[in-house]
Amino acid sequence: MHDLDMDPEAFRRHGYAVIDRIAEYLADPARWPVLPDMRPGDLRRELPEKPPAEPEPMEDILADFDRLILPYTTHWNHPGFLAYFSITGSGAGILGESLAAALNVNAMLWRTGPAATELEEVTLDWVRRMIGLPDRFDGTINDTASTSTLHALAAARELDESLEIRARGMAGRDDLPQLRVYCSEEAHSSVDKAVLTLGLGLSGVRKIPTKPQDLSMDVAALAAAIEEDRRAGIRPLAVVATVGTTSTTAVDPVPLIAEVCRRERIWLHVDAAYGGAAAILPAMRWVLDGCEVADSIVVNPHKWMFVPIDCSILYTRRPDVLKRAFSLVPEYLTTSDPSGTRNLMDYGVALGRRFRALKLWFVLRYFGVEGIRARLRSHIELARSFAQWVDDDPVFERLAPTRFSVVVFRFRPPTETDEARIDELNMQLLQQLDSSGEVLLSHTRVRGRYALRLAIGNVRTTADHITRAWQIAREAAYRLT
Amino acid sequence: MHDLDMDPEAFRRHGYAVIDRIAEYLADPARWPVLPDMRPGDLRRELPEKPPAEPEPMEDILADFDRLILPYTTHWNHPGFLAYFSITGSGAGILGESLAAALNVNAMLWRTGPAATELEEVTLDWVRRMIGLPDRFDGTINDTASTSTLHALAAARELDESLEIRARGMAGRDDLPQLRVYCSEEAHSSVDKAVLTLGLGLSGVRKIPTKPQDLSMDVAALAAAIEEDRRAGIRPLAVVATVGTTSTTAVDPVPLIAEVCRRERIWLHVDAAYGGAAAILPAMRWVLDGCEVADSIVVNPHKWMFVPIDCSILYTRRPDVLKRAFSLVPEYLTTSDPSGTRNLMDYGVALGRRFRALKLWFVLRYFGVEGIRARLRSHIELARSFAQWVDDDPVFERLAPTRFSVVVFRFRPPTETDEARIDELNMQLLQQLDSSGEVLLSHTRVRGRYALRLAIGNVRTTADHITRAWQIAREAAYRLT
Repeated sequence: MHDLDMDPEAFRRHGYAVIDRIAEYLADPARWPVLPDMRPGDLRRELPEKPPAEPEPMEDILADFDRLILPYTTHWNHPGFLAYFSITGSGAGILGESLAAALNVNAMLWRTGPAATELEEVTLDWVRRMIGLPDRFDGTINDTASTSTLHALAAARELDESLEIRARGMAGRDDLPQLRVYCSEEAHSSVDKAVLTLGLGLSGVRKIPTKPQDLSMDVAALAAAIEEDRRAGIRPLAVVATVGTTSTTAVDPVPLIAEVCRRERIWLHVDAAYGGAAAILPAMRWVLDGCEVADSIVVNPHKWMFVPIDCSILYTRRPDVLKRAFSLVPEYLTTSDPSGTRNLMDYGVALGRRFRALKLWFVLRYFGVEGIRARLRSHIELARSFAQWVDDDPVFERLAPTRFSVVVFRFRPPTETDEARIDELNMQLLQQLDSSGEVLLSHTRVRGRYALRLAIGNVRTTADHITRAWQIAREAAYRLT
Repeated sequence: MHDLDMDPEAFRRHGYAVIDRIAEYLADPARWPVLPDMRPGDLRRELPEKPPAEPEPMEDILADFDRLILPYTTHWNHPGFLAYFSITGSGAGILGESLAAALNVNAMLWRTGPAATELEEVTLDWVRRMIGLPDRFDGTINDTASTSTLHALAAARELDESLEIRARGMAGRDDLPQLRVYCSEEAHSSVDKAVLTLGLGLSGVRKIPTKPQDLSMDVAALAAAIEEDRRAGIRPLAVVATVGTTSTTAVDPVPLIAEVCRRERIWLHVDAAYGGAAAILPAMRWVLDGCEVADSIVVNPHKWMFVPIDCSILYTRRPDVLKRAFSLVPEYLTTSDPSGTRNLMDYGVALGRRFRALKLWFVLRYFGVEGIRARLRSHIELARSFAQWVDDDPVFERLAPTRFSVVVFRFRPPTETDEARIDELNMQLLQQLDSSGEVLLSHTRVRGRYALRLAIGNVRTTADHITRAWQIAREAAYRLT
């Protein structure tokens, strides 16, 4: 007879060893370079081709974690991680995730995870209040914003039941017009991916131009596009507005877009996956202006609310439509639960649902609203400092407004006028920053020009790290001149 | 200045407290009733309407975990949990998940998570060998089988580039026929949900009848349906075969279905989310016969391989087509990585990717292949014992073959001939089993008749728990007679 599972004393011993490792790692993630010095396949080559036939001691597995995983990891916890959207899985969140893994609840139905289902309702209501959305919004947690946006657009597709998309689909029908989703040319690629998944095709997305000064959606152009499409017999389904674009954190004018959507009776989805968190600060609440009348809005606590990945909230004031888009209940999942329950499986693609609300609950309580505000405020201040240094330096320039915690800038030697050459110099500059091991930035293009992105979101990032990034950038620029 | 995050000593202290809790909980999950004795809203009412303004001590949060979460949880870890597909998040898996939360890696690109990306490749190759699939299959991890099947069918939809679905979508086109996906009438609802999400509509799924004796797909009926559809101008896209249906664990004849798909040149996806794990046992390898020529196959390590939820593997021998269906690379995610890398974001809806391979690696090594085999074998033997007890008892009967670790049966009093009344008695029987607090079973319908499902998958389930379930069932049946 085999043992059933690790016995409690062994679990305690190995568990302590895991906690010790995490404590030591988080005490100073900067002992590692942000980006590992490795080539593709370096880890693969160190691992056996076949799984072990016999059990291995947990001590060996943990030793291999130290030997093989840590050195080949890109350290998102490094306070010099200033790339993409920098994120944090805070201590409280890690502990919440560990307990969720231990409970191993699948909250597909209220009955199979009552605490998971109700805690999800309560914590999402807390976040809703924190960002100032009215109580008609109802939330569910998904893995990522891509999935949340997919679900929102699936609901938009079901809004008009007369289209009969749920029943009949879209292929082979001559009674269905082309369907269109609108977003700005700066919107996230997850909009295209959702549209593609839903079967609307890439031509089902129409990219609306942005205003050159702040890269926000041009609402007059949106209205004109919708009108033009209607005249051409195309049916507008939804507009996706963005609060904090990935490229430059631009904010679309949601109140004006909402007015267009109301008039045109089309679904308004707001991608505030990153920017939504800022609304927790009273001084930044304006970023969600207009969202109170949106049909749906995505906000990611795993982005800038210190919850370990993955935790993306889709709020909607049309949960009935979302449910209509996805609900299918086979016999083996029918329940006779009393009223007042909801089954999370009815609100999206995935049937199985992890207990993600637990880590969110832990983080919200451990930091408190004021604690989260203090950290967001600090990140925004750090970004403003950096932006000021860029503005004050004659050989650097900002390429977009700094509204949140991301600075988009470039090196611009005064003697160089060839834009292609400037792009090339900035690529080299980024390469030098990233190979320092001390910081990691990423890049984008702004109006066609190569730009560097410095993103602050790690809870351990302080003025020291920003100063160091600036120092390295200036030294590299000096060498490149 | 606020503190940045929990300091290392505090993390260690709270972390040990979390580990102690998990060790104690897993030492005897049976101290809790499987299903909590609660009404909807019981937890919600205990929680404040608003998040705390100020930080709360971790001790209070953990005390609330004990006071509010454990008593309102359905205990999937309880060895008497015999419902749905019973699962286990084993100790090694819990530790792996904790470390993944600590690293907080987002492995969207190889560059942002080299260890996560390469460990996913290696561990999925290990599982591939364990279940005996050839090396032309390439895997990626998704959250659930619903998502894996969605991705597989999205790839099927892209198989024929001349359909131009990626570019033009399906709405408003008079050049596109109706598209169809086939599965048995016993297939999982995730097939319908995927088809619905992809915009093919519920009429885009055609349910093929099953053979009455074993509820497997009738391949002659499949071939006839495809032929009929082709004559009607409908374009077959894919067949989904199931190895271990959710309702009764029926196994479709994959070799014969594969032959139809080859002849018709349509995508074959195999849903082996539950049953695939059994192929790790040499005596059960036959369940995946024919899958070597499938285009895709889903196997869930979080179902019957002791990995905490979520971890679903989609294998495909057409990764190029899957990538074509989903790949979209915006500027801010372009990299100049050397060749030999792959970016996980290209193979599905979600851009963000957790480091899920870590827990899988921990479980495979901690148990070893033989350890996993021993546990699977034990579960299958327990199910066979229970099936034998049912067969030997004149007032019970099995309603489906017991191929894996699930027994589908019902109470059938010899004096009762009214089928509606027998259904009613079995509903009452299930209710009595589930209210015992000692065991939890679920139900299904087999050829229209209400049936009880006893599913074994928890690593702590032993002969004692099965015996107890049988005892309670017999006593309840006696009382109902």
